[in-house]
Amino acid sequence: MAHELDIVILAAGQGKRMASTLPKVLQPLGGRPLLGHVLITAVQVRPRRLHVVVGFGAEQVRAAFAGLEAHWVLQPELRGTGDALRRALPALGGAERVLVLYGDVPLLRAETLAAFLAETPANALGLMTGLREDPQGYGRILRDGHGQVLAIREDRDASADERRVKEVNLGIMLLPAAPLRRWLEVLGEDNAQGELYLTDVVALARADGFAVLPFVLADPQEGAGVNDPAQLAVLERIYQARRVAELQARGLRVADPSRLDIRGDVQVGQDCWIEPNCLLAGQVRLGNGVRVGMGCILQDVEIGDDVEILPYTLVEGARIDAGARIGPFARIRPGTEIGVAAHVGNFVEVKASRLGAGSKANHLSYLGDSDIGSDVNIGAGTITCNYDGARKHRTVIADGVFVGSASQLVAPVRVGAGATIGAGSTITKDVPAGGLTLSRSPQKSILHWQRPRRDKGTGEKG
Amino acid sequence: MAHELDIVILAAGQGKRMASTLPKVLQPLGGRPLLGHVLITAVQVRPRRLHVVVGFGAEQVRAAFAGLEAHWVLQPELRGTGDALRRALPALGGAERVLVLYGDVPLLRAETLAAFLAETPANALGLMTGLREDPQGYGRILRDGHGQVLAIREDRDASADERRVKEVNLGIMLLPAAPLRRWLEVLGEDNAQGELYLTDVVALARADGFAVLPFVLADPQEGAGVNDPAQLAVLERIYQARRVAELQARGLRVADPSRLDIRGDVQVGQDCWIEPNCLLAGQVRLGNGVRVGMGCILQDVEIGDDVEILPYTLVEGARIDAGARIGPFARIRPGTEIGVAAHVGNFVEVKASRLGAGSKANHLSYLGDSDIGSDVNIGAGTITCNYDGARKHRTVIADGVFVGSASQLVAPVRVGAGATIGAGSTITKDVPAGGLTLSRSPQKSILHWQRPRRDKGTGEKG
Amino acid sequence: MAHELDIVILAAGQGKRMASTLPKVLQPLGGRPLLGHVLITAVQVRPRRLHVVVGFGAEQVRAAFAGLEAHWVLQPELRGTGDALRRALPALGGAERVLVLYGDVPLLRAETLAAFLAETPANALGLMTGLREDPQGYGRILRDGHGQVLAIREDRDASADERRVKEVNLGIMLLPAAPLRRWLEVLGEDNAQGELYLTDVVALARADGFAVLPFVLADPQEGAGVNDPAQLAVLERIYQARRVAELQARGLRVADPSRLDIRGDVQVGQDCWIEPNCLLAGQVRLGNGVRVGMGCILQDVEIGDDVEILPYTLVEGARIDAGARIGPFARIRPGTEIGVAAHVGNFVEVKASRLGAGSKANHLSYLGDSDIGSDVNIGAGTITCNYDGARKHRTVIADGVFVGSASQLVAPVRVGAGATIGAGSTITKDVPAGGLTLSRSPQKSILHWQRPRRDKGTGEKG
Repeated sequence: MAHELDIVILAAGQGKRMASTLPKVLQPLGGRPLLGHVLITAVQVRPRRLHVVVGFGAEQVRAAFAGLEAHWVLQPELRGTGDALRRALPALGGAERVLVLYGDVPLLRAETLAAFLAETPANALGLMTGLREDPQGYGRILRDGHGQVLAIREDRDASADERRVKEVNLGIMLLPAAPLRRWLEVLGEDNAQGELYLTDVVALARADGFAVLPFVLADPQEGAGVNDPAQLAVLERIYQARRVAELQARGLRVADPSRLDIRGDVQVGQDCWIEPNCLLAGQVRLGNGVRVGMGCILQDVEIGDDVEILPYTLVEGARIDAGARIGPFARIRPGTEIGVAAHVGNFVEVKASRLGAGSKANHLSYLGDSDIGSDVNIGAGTITCNYDGARKHRTVIADGVFVGSASQLVAPVRVGAGATIGAGSTITKDVPAGGLTLSRSPQKSILHWQRPRRDKGTGEKG
Repeated sequence: MAHELDIVILAAGQGKRMASTLPKVLQPLGGRPLLGHVLITAVQVRPRRLHVVVGFGAEQVRAAFAGLEAHWVLQPELRGTGDALRRALPALGGAERVLVLYGDVPLLRAETLAAFLAETPANALGLMTGLREDPQGYGRILRDGHGQVLAIREDRDASADERRVKEVNLGIMLLPAAPLRRWLEVLGEDNAQGELYLTDVVALARADGFAVLPFVLADPQEGAGVNDPAQLAVLERIYQARRVAELQARGLRVADPSRLDIRGDVQVGQDCWIEPNCLLAGQVRLGNGVRVGMGCILQDVEIGDDVEILPYTLVEGARIDAGARIGPFARIRPGTEIGVAAHVGNFVEVKASRLGAGSKANHLSYLGDSDIGSDVNIGAGTITCNYDGARKHRTVIADGVFVGSASQLVAPVRVGAGATIGAGSTITKDVPAGGLTLSRSPQKSILHWQRPRRDKGTGEKG
Repeated sequence: MAHELDIVILAAGQGKRMASTLPKVLQPLGGRPLLGHVLITAVQVRPRRLHVVVGFGAEQVRAAFAGLEAHWVLQPELRGTGDALRRALPALGGAERVLVLYGDVPLLRAETLAAFLAETPANALGLMTGLREDPQGYGRILRDGHGQVLAIREDRDASADERRVKEVNLGIMLLPAAPLRRWLEVLGEDNAQGELYLTDVVALARADGFAVLPFVLADPQEGAGVNDPAQLAVLERIYQARRVAELQARGLRVADPSRLDIRGDVQVGQDCWIEPNCLLAGQVRLGNGVRVGMGCILQDVEIGDDVEILPYTLVEGARIDAGARIGPFARIRPGTEIGVAAHVGNFVEVKASRLGAGSKANHLSYLGDSDIGSDVNIGAGTITCNYDGARKHRTVIADGVFVGSASQLVAPVRVGAGATIGAGSTITKDVPAGGLTLSRSPQKSILHWQRPRRDKGTGEKG
């Protein structure tokens, strides 16, 4: 059907009830703008061309999808869905059918859309509908004796009987392109809002003798739109539940499916286990047997087999090799590679550094812009002084080095293989391989010295 | 109605099923005692006077609301709701109507109470009721042909037909003051518990020819009481859902409404975003565009526009100015002010300090009792030694200072503008402006030194 | 009934849909293998003997329950439940009744099992059933006019009427031992899978004139099995809800019951309060009035009265005495004892150490292999250098010592009572009692020194 179908995505609304400066279709769901979800779905049914009607924050919306091959249509005034589609018309020349989607209805699945396209004959108007336990506020679907759509009755115009109808209009339509032009031309604006309503096309199509066929969504959540922050949050949780279920189906084991957030593209190996309250974002690759502790955030990471990420560890833009153990309370920042079986422990920050195989930095350290070999032991409280107030410099530590606790390595500096640095040293010059290097003042005791005494009733150590 | 209404809040019970030394009405819901919620609601309908009947832990309860303008009534023995109200009687002289509330029914809304007051005629007895799918254990409302309450039938006395009634008594009553005295006098205690039941007033009122009018709660959760820890937790989540919905209605965007806890008074600007598992307590003010990462706890804070609070950051009693970035894993303690566009990074604790505009303390530092100017760079591992074992002293750092990593500033000490402190220095005397100040031992290498060798099979770095 | 009942637990399956290398019955639920839950329940009804039929990963399963007194039966090929039971037969000699349980149905309660045993006559076949709103995929229970089981109809063989039956077979059976041998011998394998189905015994029993009595589970969750990661997660949350409810019934107050995970044996005193997102594992004992902040993980801990565990604190294998305060962001590792009213603060790690009564280590420290007396003040940034690259050594600090900030104690080392160590010292030799001990270089200023200037447009401090 690719040669004949054009898709028009209506994305012009402000979304006043979002109370935001961000156009509604740019509000994030699972870390991606609402419109992004709709675009991904739209592309999957392979339209001839994709049209996006923008209005509020038009430039901002276009900029957010700068690389997208789409025809952007500007709706200068928000005069309703009918007006929006009318503005897209000039570019619809070659299409046989037009599918209308909404930039704020993000959960529609491509498979659902494909079924909608397949089941609607080319010369009929297809209308996506859903059953709602509480249909209040929605336009009701009135069907004729053949099960076709007779009319869409707005809530305020519905009779008592009509109000009891639970099938509602979801707005998504598939239209034959040829008569659509005619129908759009005659749309009226004699309604409370003074807008052109696309739904009025249904009556025009019926009058023209076209069949209007309802397509009832099996899962009405797919047709849910976003109008305010509460709805956005509801859809976020539905979306997350979907994502988690997908990963479970690929074998991922999670302690609590409702406490996992996924915002990106996640691949998991066999026998991975994720504890509650983790967030996976960007491109995340987990090998086999990876265990992720409570409250971890992994963004754009590649994690090898049998890696253990202990609780409350943040990893971003890094590669962690097989058998490594990271955390708890560790922070691995972009540009970092942690080698095979290396350990990074609590209250340790690593940035733009390489930590070689089997090396350990287990406690209270800052490793920045460092190139650390294998089997290196970084003592507690080690700090690479990578910044001189103007520029960053690198620290290079060769294999087998032992850095004593509370040492500072003032970069640029190199430490030779097998060197030992004494605890508490400030290393400002290159350290030769082997041997012991340190900077240390002699220990002295002043025995008659008297510690200041606490006045009675004074306070606490802070 | 303020001139005529007295409210009596029954708050004398122990709540044995809470298994707590704390009186039940002091158990916290959303960080505030149960009774506190009822008092806030009660005050909003502007009674002439507020009476609180206390019994178990009476002094503790009174002390918890020390500033409250209320008439405290002691019920020395817990002889039932009728006895409790009887003890409040002497002080009800001037009231025309008496509203009876319960200290352990905390979710009732003031608007609901106002409607109850408005819809109940002055000379009738109003009875709050609710519909429950599972009414077991509750007193059932038996209505007469006019829809008025005929009787309240306790569960144990109910016939099979009566047990099927789903309308239950919630205990909250509005009573005409004049006949109430008479009714209370004749309450009997011939029941299993040997207590005086306020519900018996219904029969007495009927016998006296008074109308007893049911007021059915639209949302039966408003009438839910707390009897055990499980119920308390259920109400906590209902309360939290309400609070989150209120903030969403004001534009707040949250990744997961069920994973946000609010215990206090929260104001949010436009375009704020809160990630899962945050806790907001006390007085919290968020400007526009504030982003709060996962697992943060903010208590009594004022946060400026576009501030970013990264994950796992705790802020208490502090002001964070516009554009600042705090965390992850930062702890800002009371008495702190973080200036415009300042940064506080991971594993950094700041207490009773000022960090000026554009200043940065990004890694592994403790800043206590410090006054730090603008554009200061605090290197990794910096520690202000503010405590001498007896007293706290202040560290004052002027604008534009660069404190090298792993330095200690032994307070009281002052660092002049633009000074640079070399990494690893212990600063015990004031530092002049400009120039480089340091304390450092020369670096030495002992090349023939041999590091202790690990015996085969011994263990791990700890 | 102990003298007559044998229990056979079928635990041979691989669980392909788990997509795991771990045999299904070893998948953890609440931190314990699925089979472990079934074993605990089975033992509580006191069988004469327990038989466990293993197949996939048989050795791994046996090894996981090495101490268990059970008869392990190997099912070399997975030829169905009938075959599995047949293999257990030779060892069932002395039993009068045989109860068949499943290693992947972990939520069955012992009380339920006891009722099943009590209500099923010795010469009848008992069949556990459950009512499911959506019975699809389950074998339906067809009853005769006496309410007995006529047949189990597999989903694929069911007529339209039979498909509407909501009572389903849960597989758990109680069988008279004597005829069971006969029935198992004649089981056929003419079915799609070519396996022997235990359910076929129902028809054989009926044909032999035995009553087949259904036992309908009041709570159908008890009969839920695990076939894939999604089901495992669903059962995990049901299990956790149960555990939390048990603790609430004993008085525990939790801010959010759905955000607490319990994997082990937890005892709580009076007036304990647990904030959201905690995990309790292993043997956990909380005294009275213990407060546990958000996101804490407590494993194998004993915590005294009125201890306060602040947010994001990890404690494992430790004892915390009354009135202590730990955290936030603290990590207490195995072998640690924290004394009465001692404080451990943020970004502090304590391992295999004792911290005496009233002592404080409030900021950014690593205390490993240390024996610290009472009323000691450990300054911010203190590090015990317990590792020399080969061995661990101990640091011993006597009562009343004040360790200045950013000091290193190079073990083995002893600090005498009441000593004061100056900030920034590297202590390599024993410190005498009293007086002041330090290692420090003099502070110097180079006033003409010029800090490197940042080129325009270069970046950020990292």
